[in-house]
Amino acid sequence: MAFQNVDRAAELESFYTNMDAQNLEGLWRVAHDVLTPEPTTVVQPYLWRWENVARVTHEAGRLVPLERGGERRAVALVNPGLRGKFAATDTLYAAIQLIRPGELAPPHRHTPTAIRFIIQGEGATTTVESEKITMNEGDLILTPNWTWHEHRNEGTEDVLWLDGLDIPLIRSLSSIFFESFPEDSLPLTTATDYSTKAFGSAAVKPVGYKPAAKDGSMLMYRWPGVQRTLESLRNEVGTAHDGMALEYINPHTGGHTLPTMSCWMQMLRPDEHTQAHRHTPSVIYYAFKGNGSTIIDGLRFDWGAGDSFVVPPWRWHEHVNASASEDALLFSMNDGPVMEAFGLLREESYSENGGQQRVTGVFDG
Amino acid sequence: MAFQNVDRAAELESFYTNMDAQNLEGLWRVAHDVLTPEPTTVVQPYLWRWENVARVTHEAGRLVPLERGGERRAVALVNPGLRGKFAATDTLYAAIQLIRPGELAPPHRHTPTAIRFIIQGEGATTTVESEKITMNEGDLILTPNWTWHEHRNEGTEDVLWLDGLDIPLIRSLSSIFFESFPEDSLPLTTATDYSTKAFGSAAVKPVGYKPAAKDGSMLMYRWPGVQRTLESLRNEVGTAHDGMALEYINPHTGGHTLPTMSCWMQMLRPDEHTQAHRHTPSVIYYAFKGNGSTIIDGLRFDWGAGDSFVVPPWRWHEHVNASASEDALLFSMNDGPVMEAFGLLREESYSENGGQQRVTGVFDG
Amino acid sequence: MAFQNVDRAAELESFYTNMDAQNLEGLWRVAHDVLTPEPTTVVQPYLWRWENVARVTHEAGRLVPLERGGERRAVALVNPGLRGKFAATDTLYAAIQLIRPGELAPPHRHTPTAIRFIIQGEGATTTVESEKITMNEGDLILTPNWTWHEHRNEGTEDVLWLDGLDIPLIRSLSSIFFESFPEDSLPLTTATDYSTKAFGSAAVKPVGYKPAAKDGSMLMYRWPGVQRTLESLRNEVGTAHDGMALEYINPHTGGHTLPTMSCWMQMLRPDEHTQAHRHTPSVIYYAFKGNGSTIIDGLRFDWGAGDSFVVPPWRWHEHVNASASEDALLFSMNDGPVMEAFGLLREESYSENGGQQRVTGVFDG
Amino acid sequence: MAFQNVDRAAELESFYTNMDAQNLEGLWRVAHDVLTPEPTTVVQPYLWRWENVARVTHEAGRLVPLERGGERRAVALVNPGLRGKFAATDTLYAAIQLIRPGELAPPHRHTPTAIRFIIQGEGATTTVESEKITMNEGDLILTPNWTWHEHRNEGTEDVLWLDGLDIPLIRSLSSIFFESFPEDSLPLTTATDYSTKAFGSAAVKPVGYKPAAKDGSMLMYRWPGVQRTLESLRNEVGTAHDGMALEYINPHTGGHTLPTMSCWMQMLRPDEHTQAHRHTPSVIYYAFKGNGSTIIDGLRFDWGAGDSFVVPPWRWHEHVNASASEDALLFSMNDGPVMEAFGLLREESYSENGGQQRVTGVFDG
Repeated sequence: MAFQNVDRAAELESFYTNMDAQNLEGLWRVAHDVLTPEPTTVVQPYLWRWENVARVTHEAGRLVPLERGGERRAVALVNPGLRGKFAATDTLYAAIQLIRPGELAPPHRHTPTAIRFIIQGEGATTTVESEKITMNEGDLILTPNWTWHEHRNEGTEDVLWLDGLDIPLIRSLSSIFFESFPEDSLPLTTATDYSTKAFGSAAVKPVGYKPAAKDGSMLMYRWPGVQRTLESLRNEVGTAHDGMALEYINPHTGGHTLPTMSCWMQMLRPDEHTQAHRHTPSVIYYAFKGNGSTIIDGLRFDWGAGDSFVVPPWRWHEHVNASASEDALLFSMNDGPVMEAFGLLREESYSENGGQQRVTGVFDG
Repeated sequence: MAFQNVDRAAELESFYTNMDAQNLEGLWRVAHDVLTPEPTTVVQPYLWRWENVARVTHEAGRLVPLERGGERRAVALVNPGLRGKFAATDTLYAAIQLIRPGELAPPHRHTPTAIRFIIQGEGATTTVESEKITMNEGDLILTPNWTWHEHRNEGTEDVLWLDGLDIPLIRSLSSIFFESFPEDSLPLTTATDYSTKAFGSAAVKPVGYKPAAKDGSMLMYRWPGVQRTLESLRNEVGTAHDGMALEYINPHTGGHTLPTMSCWMQMLRPDEHTQAHRHTPSVIYYAFKGNGSTIIDGLRFDWGAGDSFVVPPWRWHEHVNASASEDALLFSMNDGPVMEAFGLLREESYSENGGQQRVTGVFDG
Repeated sequence: MAFQNVDRAAELESFYTNMDAQNLEGLWRVAHDVLTPEPTTVVQPYLWRWENVARVTHEAGRLVPLERGGERRAVALVNPGLRGKFAATDTLYAAIQLIRPGELAPPHRHTPTAIRFIIQGEGATTTVESEKITMNEGDLILTPNWTWHEHRNEGTEDVLWLDGLDIPLIRSLSSIFFESFPEDSLPLTTATDYSTKAFGSAAVKPVGYKPAAKDGSMLMYRWPGVQRTLESLRNEVGTAHDGMALEYINPHTGGHTLPTMSCWMQMLRPDEHTQAHRHTPSVIYYAFKGNGSTIIDGLRFDWGAGDSFVVPPWRWHEHVNASASEDALLFSMNDGPVMEAFGLLREESYSENGGQQRVTGVFDG
Repeated sequence: MAFQNVDRAAELESFYTNMDAQNLEGLWRVAHDVLTPEPTTVVQPYLWRWENVARVTHEAGRLVPLERGGERRAVALVNPGLRGKFAATDTLYAAIQLIRPGELAPPHRHTPTAIRFIIQGEGATTTVESEKITMNEGDLILTPNWTWHEHRNEGTEDVLWLDGLDIPLIRSLSSIFFESFPEDSLPLTTATDYSTKAFGSAAVKPVGYKPAAKDGSMLMYRWPGVQRTLESLRNEVGTAHDGMALEYINPHTGGHTLPTMSCWMQMLRPDEHTQAHRHTPSVIYYAFKGNGSTIIDGLRFDWGAGDSFVVPPWRWHEHVNASASEDALLFSMNDGPVMEAFGLLREESYSENGGQQRVTGVFDG
């Protein structure tokens, strides 16, 4: 019935106009655009040539002083499908940042997270929270969500890096927060490059790597890597009760060596004498290098390389390196992961006598 | 009233005798022994001298042929407080194991987990599941719960190591299972020392380490460590779609670089041309070294060092190293962790044309 | 110097024009708009009156037949700040959906997740995967990411509900996938309302609730609730080895009752005789109601209400309700969570003799 | 060669004697006893008849006053294979506990975790930390690791329950700690039975339950259960900013309703006017029952049942129930889980004007 159809069309048009005025919309009118069989996207594949990007970036170095250029001199890669959105993809932003000799990109923090991949130049540093990190070509530096950070060129040449941030994602979530640090630079209370020393090398994993063990445990930890890490940490404070101690960790979880056992290598530096404590885990020690003593409930156990000894649960103990010139290295294993699994992990520091026990005897096993 | 007391005592004695006969016991009679203010333990602090342990172990090497000595020639350290329990502590067992030139400690597996800390000697190997691992002084090797493993001395000198196992714990849980492998040796289907190459170095963490970032992210990944890892994996198969690709991981969790972004470094070896695929994460690439092409939905993007380019979500793409002699290295970041958080991670391999797209044009941006 | 400024201005204008042509942008030009001290948003506070929404929805019921209206008749609330985006907030979509008597909203699935809060009307159902769920006023129904679902009005009155979906979020991630089910309706292979019966009641938690126990364990599980749940599941299949068995779960984690112990209540229905199995966890049973037998390694243990008995680790066992008319209820606790924590959980079904042991004796303890 | 064998035997005997004197043992001598193909255990299957247990327990009630009987009058079930170990299995202890009218089992705490399954009698209570819990037949009460607890019989009849503890496990880990509370009873600062009210009913899950959704989300939350929970919490304090608010939780994880959305039902009691706050998540509200207002950045939005409204991210807002006699119920959904996933969850309380905004206008949309 043509008349009816006309009426119907007019009625529908009126209906839709009315809906629109009330900020309502019919799903049936847009569903095919919204609920697509596969993702549609306005993001375009695109490539920015280094020649152009570098030329523009260096021109910015000449034309835009850092103080005038806001807080950072970064040339952003804008996806042609996202013009006006300051984004390279739906979620990510990328830019080339330049910092010239003597310049400081002042400290601030923000909810977007940043990564920096160093392209060229030496002598720059990034400080994150309280740790200064030196930057060299090919290094990757992270400044996670809401961490204070500043960049500084303390060298004599231009330094460039690639910035990557999740700005488009955080903006789409209306969650941008930004704060300038009230002073010119961040206070440095951690050793320079401490986090690099702490983990010994890059933490990477082959894409698609399947661990041989069902529980994802590591199979092998080479001594030279452990040794290098210990050596790089020689001048750090270390622990109160165990000297400079490393735990072998499961790289698939960041957790303990194994579900039931944790392995440690601890370095007692020349003349080091630790504070005493006691804890629920029990420990089996193997003296790997050097000579020293462990005092357990007042009894002194003298050990040399190759000796093994046991500290039972909840017994006071402290360690002494007997040498004024050589390191003493103790390898050990403990059942701490079991204690932790059941809420049984407890530790207590010895508070009397300056934190160290009086020796009441010597073990002659 | 003495008489009453006597009666009461007799009544109680009879009562307790009767309870005992019925396999019942009053908590009030034993609570003070059981629910102690602090842990009591029969484990004794004790030390085993290397001189003695080594002498006994070498004598065992002479007196106890491996075939006669069961499956392993291991001299266990028995805590004097746990005699008869074959244990060094409540939960842990330790022993010195010796394997002589030409010997094989045959393949088996068991629910107790083992660690091996190599004491001396060269030329031995441990195979775990399908991967042979070479053993050197100071190395730590794990054989997790129920993994097949064998030891073999392929060298010319005695090799000794410290064994640590959680046998007492697993026994106390009545959960010991053991199985011999039906053949003389495990089939080797993984490259020798693959897990060592994969992770580049020892995975260790200073005890008590507090990450600067609240979310525990790593601050710095040095290029030389990444480069060494890539180099050691040069001859491995790698991935179908991305060449030999490494993901930068968060060592505190074993997970992605950051909650919203994952960073990768991928090596396209000379003449390498990957298979095409598409996935929901979008990627920003930065060409770090070399020259090559990426084909996106049939359009070829040629790139050289310093160029940046974008692969949008769900677009077919594959990579080509244009050189027959030089590596091409691509650094990239993607939003895969966001996709994963919401169950949106999808990937599809290109199945036509042998898995590689036909080039329909060249990007001239 | 005015001349210089003019030159500089011209130079800068040319510089910026050139950047724009190359799809580059200076962070310093937009940073203040992007990195705001606090979130800015185009989302407006807004209210849609029920009177209007209901009138429009019912008009849509008249004007837009379901078959013509695409797959769903839903009137979406469009935020005036997000016109053209089909969104109520940055991440969420809301709509009123109407389904009329006899109508079917055909089965499909999509990556956006949906919730339905039932507003009015009776007789409608939503099927999710293979389970049909009845809908009543005030109920909340979920259709998670990529689950098949259909709606059907099997009653005699209009049914309305509030739809909530994360469409704007999933669109901003370019991750919309959609698929129609190839048939008119989903096959029903699960009992109607099974998930409601399984969990006994609404799973809710007061906002801000702090558990008394540090490990978040529940303090109290009332018997009437457990009883109701068991009763509602009476006609379901249950388990092969334990009748209809419920585990008491920790509502803060969805996991076991406690880190070291799991508690169960199992109902053996009249004449029920389970299959035999063995597992590493050991179990202490308390016969709460009724009479029956448990056969352990061939020995029959007859029990009545109040009796306690133990099944050691890795022993074959099966349960029998001796009555043809009464239920038998066994409360029990086991150390399965400990086994699970260390990868020691194993179970084996008895395969001989039709899965049930031959009785070789009767316990007379 | 018989002579040689004799010599060898003598040599071996001497060797083993020497090992033993040094607290060393050869794995090869014990491996077959320790590394068994399947678990061996000394735990025996056993059954304790209620008739006997009850008689002994009641005799203990007569013969062993609580003050004399240590802290608890519990008759433990001792496995005949574990005599002297005070254990029913390797890891678990079970006992029948009796508390007589007027008795108090005084407050203490310990590292072993306990469960109580109530057997018979009314009028007893268990206090855990600061919450008193009433005990009825068939209820299950937990006292997790290191929580203060006491039992009290405030009724007129004997009350019995089954105790289950992990004492043998915690002892085998040398981790028993015990502490008496310094006063006669625990201070009660939480409402009686609060945890029961909070979760509405028993948290149970059928053994072997497989959720229909891959991500384990719940499919259905029935309104009557939600309503009962709200009603039972009517007189509790609730939240500062949202009245008495319930979150619908995923019972498989204890977490939010869905990975991208959280659903709430909040009850504004008669005349309730909440404090203002702002937070990064945005919220879509649906007024389910009653009438009230929500003030957003000073603008008052009046709503009645059926109205929907939106609170954008980071906007001040507070809620008012306009009625002095009726509840107002708001159903809502928010994107808090997305914020949480990326460390973007922030909330701020309004501190001026007594925590409530001045109304500057009324929405007339």
